Amino acid sequence: MDGTQMPAAMAALTARYGAGAEPKAGPWNDTISLLLSHRSVRGFSTDPLPPGTLETLVAAAQSAATSSNLQTWSVVAVDDPAVRAELATIAGGQKHIEQCPIFLVFLADVSRNQRLSAEAGTELAGMPFLESFLVAAIDAALAAQNAVVAAESLGLSNVYIGALRNDVQRVAALLGLPAGATPVFGLCVGHALPGREGAVKPRLPQEAVLHRGRYDVNDAAHRAAYDPRMADFSARHEMGATTWTQRVIARLGTMKALSGRDRLKDALIALGFPLR
Amino acid sequence: MDGTQMPAAMAALTARYGAGAEPKAGPWNDTISLLLSHRSVRGFSTDPLPPGTLETLVAAAQSAATSSNLQTWSVVAVDDPAVRAELATIAGGQKHIEQCPIFLVFLADVSRNQRLSAEAGTELAGMPFLESFLVAAIDAALAAQNAVVAAESLGLSNVYIGALRNDVQRVAALLGLPAGATPVFGLCVGHALPGREGAVKPRLPQEAVLHRGRYDVNDAAHRAAYDPRMADFSARHEMGATTWTQRVIARLGTMKALSGRDRLKDALIALGFPLR
Repeated sequence: MDGTQMPAAMAALTARYGAGAEPKAGPWNDTISLLLSHRSVRGFSTDPLPPGTLETLVAAAQSAATSSNLQTWSVVAVDDPAVRAELATIAGGQKHIEQCPIFLVFLADVSRNQRLSAEAGTELAGMPFLESFLVAAIDAALAAQNAVVAAESLGLSNVYIGALRNDVQRVAALLGLPAGATPVFGLCVGHALPGREGAVKPRLPQEAVLHRGRYDVNDAAHRAAYDPRMADFSARHEMGATTWTQRVIARLGTMKALSGRDRLKDALIALGFPLR
Repeated sequence: MDGTQMPAAMAALTARYGAGAEPKAGPWNDTISLLLSHRSVRGFSTDPLPPGTLETLVAAAQSAATSSNLQTWSVVAVDDPAVRAELATIAGGQKHIEQCPIFLVFLADVSRNQRLSAEAGTELAGMPFLESFLVAAIDAALAAQNAVVAAESLGLSNVYIGALRNDVQRVAALLGLPAGATPVFGLCVGHALPGREGAVKPRLPQEAVLHRGRYDVNDAAHRAAYDPRMADFSARHEMGATTWTQRVIARLGTMKALSGRDRLKDALIALGFPLR
């Protein structure tokens, strides 16, 4: 590593993993510092952004890899306040969906390829499988993450809205989606309100996530080390000192916490993804 | 836009969309130019990378957003030449899997959360649903794309290997994956061999992918405009002047082209994702 980058690398790794839990620092630069500094923001200024911001973010998104160049994703930019309000309700009352200057709904979208084949008078035999839906969802995620990095490089904040999956059929109806297109998540983009910039959230020790050669299931010590770090972060920035273990169980322990997403499979089939 | 960035923005947009098809240029900077310059590379120098490169890439990956901080992904770094050779065979003979200095297999991984709940003596009622697999796959994709951006910022090239999904059960066995973990894709990282740096591939016109307010299915003109651009790109950089339409039909028109991925659903269920 260039010695001038060492302090930045160490500071970024300490913020992300916690003091004493930093992985080995390798090559580094300002782009990597930017990536490490990500935080989700849920309070946005309603001020409009410079002209062309949306187009720049989508150009970055389209530059991400896409499986076999199939480009099986799309994005809807939603401005209508009434539609924003309905989407916020679907997402369990997330008011930032109504406040952010750019709100995007990323779609897994095989409908464009289906229109193409219909015009060519042929059928896409490979389309009705779970694989095609998965490719489309991954395409959308890679694209969205590039948009996120572009936004953060411009000093803009963001938060993903997975809760649009609470009712993908209702979202699809609101956005006029054709068969073969479904929302996978939303994305708020804008300037963080003062005091709402958030903090870098600590992640699991790298040893728990990075496996070398073969998967190592003996991760109890890494999880035990992480629990108090998340409890400390929660006490400082959120509500109550809950450990990671407690949070995972709260999020996944009950059917109620799924907020309707137990019906996702049937909804996707109804939206034109047979998932064979 | 800062006027000094205008030439860089226009050059990047022309390379990505084709002359005359550039979207409106908005705010810009060097990070966005980097994102726009992405190209997939399939010929790598076998030279090792600086110490700590892998750890830096994984730190960037862990810094991506993860749904509810569940962190339902993992990554296996594979060095063993024999395992690399088997993975290359599964992927249809992609030799770059054997050559690149870093080869990563990204996993959708709910097994860590399941180990946590088992130790806590509870069950995760929300886990057996398609939603949980989708969250895990999206988590893995967001993480991987951050690793890709970090690698490219360091002058390293890469290519995603979706073809690991040709046989996820065989890959899982090779890597010793527990139930609740499955490969979603691989990633080659390294220095491009001279002459193998690739070229920026044109994408669909932005109007075909970005919808405003509601989805617009009237995209035939945008697809028609794109077909000759891809034919020209193919003639210059790949084999034969095939249009995008021809390529999509070749990729998805037959069951054979799925290379076994029509069995993905059954394979995922066998690997511990009930997909309810």
